[in-house]
Amino acid sequence: MRLFNQVAIIGVGLIGGSIGLAIKKRRIAKRVIGISRRKKTINNAISRRAIDYGSQDLSVVRDSDLIILASPVGSIIQIGIRISSLVKPEAIITDTGSTKKIIVKELENVLPNFVGSHPLAGSEKQGIDNARGDLFCGSLCVLTPTVNTKKPVLNKIKRFWTALGARVTYLSPQRHDEFISCVSHLPHAIAFSLILSVPRSSLFLASTGLSDTTRIASSPEEVWKDIFLTNSKNILKALERFTGSLSCIKSAIMRKDTRSLEILLRRARAKRLSLKR
Amino acid sequence: MRLFNQVAIIGVGLIGGSIGLAIKKRRIAKRVIGISRRKKTINNAISRRAIDYGSQDLSVVRDSDLIILASPVGSIIQIGIRISSLVKPEAIITDTGSTKKIIVKELENVLPNFVGSHPLAGSEKQGIDNARGDLFCGSLCVLTPTVNTKKPVLNKIKRFWTALGARVTYLSPQRHDEFISCVSHLPHAIAFSLILSVPRSSLFLASTGLSDTTRIASSPEEVWKDIFLTNSKNILKALERFTGSLSCIKSAIMRKDTRSLEILLRRARAKRLSLKR
Repeated sequence: MRLFNQVAIIGVGLIGGSIGLAIKKRRIAKRVIGISRRKKTINNAISRRAIDYGSQDLSVVRDSDLIILASPVGSIIQIGIRISSLVKPEAIITDTGSTKKIIVKELENVLPNFVGSHPLAGSEKQGIDNARGDLFCGSLCVLTPTVNTKKPVLNKIKRFWTALGARVTYLSPQRHDEFISCVSHLPHAIAFSLILSVPRSSLFLASTGLSDTTRIASSPEEVWKDIFLTNSKNILKALERFTGSLSCIKSAIMRKDTRSLEILLRRARAKRLSLKR
Repeated sequence: MRLFNQVAIIGVGLIGGSIGLAIKKRRIAKRVIGISRRKKTINNAISRRAIDYGSQDLSVVRDSDLIILASPVGSIIQIGIRISSLVKPEAIITDTGSTKKIIVKELENVLPNFVGSHPLAGSEKQGIDNARGDLFCGSLCVLTPTVNTKKPVLNKIKRFWTALGARVTYLSPQRHDEFISCVSHLPHAIAFSLILSVPRSSLFLASTGLSDTTRIASSPEEVWKDIFLTNSKNILKALERFTGSLSCIKSAIMRKDTRSLEILLRRARAKRLSLKR
């Protein structure tokens, strides 16, 4: 289903590349162009047919009807500001950043047709080589409209993500950052800390328990430093809550309090089972 | 390859049931008997052909050549003591507990042919219904001999686990408990705490990051309270180290110290990638 004439994807990594593949596969746009700092990424994206044309120069976005900012969170605002003088007045712009408050606040000012998106479909893998056309199928995509968002723009972006196979939900940028700090940013901070704390001498005994618990610690540092720093308040709050729970378990172990320990673990188990994954 | 005439498995859950299935499949013993507190478990184990005969009465272990204590850690010592007056003098006894120091110390005194085992092949699932005959294939099994262990007994137990498909390694009970607290008990304590700390209101946004990181939090509380309480010293030490790593990441976020944060995350990522799972 054709929704756009030309789509430009800035940052053709795991997310940007997967968007390109999905657009081509589902014929959502006539033409997909990709922008990357690296020539090699552009060539890979073209040979994987994720984009029709690629450039290292941002000015190629000029004639696009939809522009997707899919670079790491730390560079999205800067790129958004740079393209603001280039894009057509009616062009719709969105991003795929994992934090929304700062990005939406800054880019709404310079891009009148901007809506923030966060497709919850990442993985610890990165790069165009891991991109998949079905990455968004059945996944959730959070859109973060504000009082300044134009209804038709929001609807078009909703149709776009739906066409890619995602279920769409709406949250304010603030609520998004609060919720996502608990279910995504906190687990990442924990996984990074956990693997750092395990002595190398004991790793030969590591089994699926450790490897599953720390899988997301192999996520790229360039991506995650930006996320941690652009949602620091919420993450620090989530870490406080985590430290509280950990203290309860620790204290029950120290006191050899079987009963309390059992109650805590049972509650944890029931909550985890309710996740159904 | 027949190694024993009769094997008795006390506790026919995930681990005990899987041992039974593997013994039968690989014809390691002529006869496998199972002991469980629950009639239903015995019936399930018989109908799944994990055991030939089952009883709720411990005294049936009498004529067995190998006895495997596969109940939760908290009851292994008590059961070991109870069977000490029943077993043949030449019978070999082992257990499958996740902590070894306390168990080995107590049971060596009452069972002269005892060697501790810890097959690293569990999962968050439990019960005979989840037992699998190939559970130990390619997994690691730690044996924990001491100065009191008889060489032929140790060799026989080694041959037994090898016949079940496991790779066998040796550690002192103390070293086992120290190492395993880092790679298994710590991740469990973290996973339980993490899921407890996530507000229910945010769970609708949960994706694979949270579900993988907390998968082992759905492990049974009956099993894990015992493990935490019989290896408390090592677990508390591991928790201290974890808290130290977490503080480094937290402090870098608070100080908005991009450089330190990037170095920490890069180090975590490299260590996780070295796990290769």
